[in-house]
Amino acid sequence: MIQTDILIIGAGPTGLFTVFEAGLLKLRCHIIDALPQPGGQLAELYPKKPIFDIPGFPSVDAGVLVDNLMEQIKQFEPGFTLNEVAQTIEKQEDGSFIVTTNKGTQHQTKAIAIAGGLGSFEPRKPDLENLAQFEEKGIEYFVRDPELFSDKKIIIAGGGDSALDWSIFLADVASEVTLIHRRNEFRGALDSVEKLQELKNQGKVNLITPAEVRALHGDERLTGITIEKDGEFQTLETDYLIPLFGLSPKLGPIADWGLEIEKNAIKVNNALDYQTNVDGIYAIGDINTYPGKLKLILCGFHEATMAVQSIYQRLNPGKKFILKYTTVSGVDGFDGSRKEAEKAVVKSID
Amino acid sequence: MIQTDILIIGAGPTGLFTVFEAGLLKLRCHIIDALPQPGGQLAELYPKKPIFDIPGFPSVDAGVLVDNLMEQIKQFEPGFTLNEVAQTIEKQEDGSFIVTTNKGTQHQTKAIAIAGGLGSFEPRKPDLENLAQFEEKGIEYFVRDPELFSDKKIIIAGGGDSALDWSIFLADVASEVTLIHRRNEFRGALDSVEKLQELKNQGKVNLITPAEVRALHGDERLTGITIEKDGEFQTLETDYLIPLFGLSPKLGPIADWGLEIEKNAIKVNNALDYQTNVDGIYAIGDINTYPGKLKLILCGFHEATMAVQSIYQRLNPGKKFILKYTTVSGVDGFDGSRKEAEKAVVKSID
Repeated sequence: MIQTDILIIGAGPTGLFTVFEAGLLKLRCHIIDALPQPGGQLAELYPKKPIFDIPGFPSVDAGVLVDNLMEQIKQFEPGFTLNEVAQTIEKQEDGSFIVTTNKGTQHQTKAIAIAGGLGSFEPRKPDLENLAQFEEKGIEYFVRDPELFSDKKIIIAGGGDSALDWSIFLADVASEVTLIHRRNEFRGALDSVEKLQELKNQGKVNLITPAEVRALHGDERLTGITIEKDGEFQTLETDYLIPLFGLSPKLGPIADWGLEIEKNAIKVNNALDYQTNVDGIYAIGDINTYPGKLKLILCGFHEATMAVQSIYQRLNPGKKFILKYTTVSGVDGFDGSRKEAEKAVVKSID
Repeated sequence: MIQTDILIIGAGPTGLFTVFEAGLLKLRCHIIDALPQPGGQLAELYPKKPIFDIPGFPSVDAGVLVDNLMEQIKQFEPGFTLNEVAQTIEKQEDGSFIVTTNKGTQHQTKAIAIAGGLGSFEPRKPDLENLAQFEEKGIEYFVRDPELFSDKKIIIAGGGDSALDWSIFLADVASEVTLIHRRNEFRGALDSVEKLQELKNQGKVNLITPAEVRALHGDERLTGITIEKDGEFQTLETDYLIPLFGLSPKLGPIADWGLEIEKNAIKVNNALDYQTNVDGIYAIGDINTYPGKLKLILCGFHEATMAVQSIYQRLNPGKKFILKYTTVSGVDGFDGSRKEAEKAVVKSID
């Protein structure tokens, strides 16, 4: 069982920064996220788009902000359980919690910071009868490891950036790439659309539009699909179908944890420490609500910092932590590294 | 009289970022600061020192953070009244305020955000009888415009980074530079101490240690000082004396504005909008206090953002402002400039 001081649910910017503030207080963190990589929406939905309202950055691409945060917290060696959804929670007699994911991974923690953003992002799934039967047996909603598709026949369905970008990328990996979209028009970055046009002209990507997937075939694994184009049905052999129809946020299993919920968000005590109605469980960032709440990354950073201070008090009752400026005190990592300002010398001049 | 939507008192990081969040809501800001340049402590006390706890920056020099914030708010054309201290406040019948500085500059505003940090930083002054008589008449506590000292005889007193750095810098500007310090040892960056040693060896800076200033002489203007060294008194001719003994923060005249004060900080309603007990006056950043308050820059950013939203409601009663992500909406400056994410295209592939 994974043991940690603070279990963070959600690896978006708020969850990541929590690791830093916890580290300053010598608390260790472990993060669970439903997505295959850290960064939340920033990494999954718009890594190349600029954000203009992060203080101190006139403009920063979302993916760069994630990279910076990962670099900032590296010293504090966070653990990650990625690609899994926090499902059940059990309060132990000693006040700790055990959180188990949908894949059975167990985490024991002294405090929980839910930084779940708009909820767990789940792929929008096509409405097909026997879809669940083929999930992870030919149906993939994310490209987690491109090598999986090496020398395979793949069909990607979708018309946005993800569908375009992965078709382009996998054209060099898979033995055959087919892109199916229900419209003739694609919506994405201009250079992606142009690149795909080129690959199509070179015969490296098959393009079928306007068309939709209507049926899945196979026994143990997916072996083919039926598509409808201009009212005609057609069956295609394939090793994989990758439907990339975007992600939809869901509060998910957390909704059943006994937390006070208001309009799909978790109510917290904003006058003090962003704790929920359950002692020891905090909610920070876009997933919480309180009077005047703003769903801004910079607010999540503040909420994380306040919550972590409260968790410190919870775990160290009666102990006083003296807040020092990092410029003055430096930052000592759990990995033995130290960041510090250059020291002044005291030296006489002859 | 200067007119503005929000009068910000204090040009530190919190005050500067307030301009950005206000600008997103189409509110104009004007900033008063006692120091000669924006940036507060960051610019005045430790511009070259790194800060490690600004979210998204594994390390950022304080001066760079100030530059970044100035760049970020440029679009929203803030006004500045620098080098003046906000002194008196009068509430008008229409609910607006008139704030007058120690130099008589008047500002009329609909709301006030006090972002005064630890207070106004005032120079620590030497204990000399007729000091006030010569202030700005030969006594300068800041080097605002180095040209003032061009071809003049100057005496700098002090033993820290400022005294070292300005002695070095002004050695090329003034006709004669004398540095007086009450100890033989200087405390500062190693390269500054070494550079000063070199300038002393070259005869470009006179060094008198351990020595202290004991008296000032002159009629209309300062013409000389008496110093004490090893129990002996000695008179030196000079055009300027620049005592650089550091800055000391004082709440200053704001303490008399009828705001509820607790331990040298202003009490605010942190459960809502960081407003003080006086309607329309907010306190944000290090100058405020509430349960669990942390004096961190990142908290000031959050407080500024929340306060500005409340000010918007105050100035536009009943009007609903729809918060949009800057990535989606872009940022429109008051100067006509626009920042925005690259647009997706909708394009068919033939």
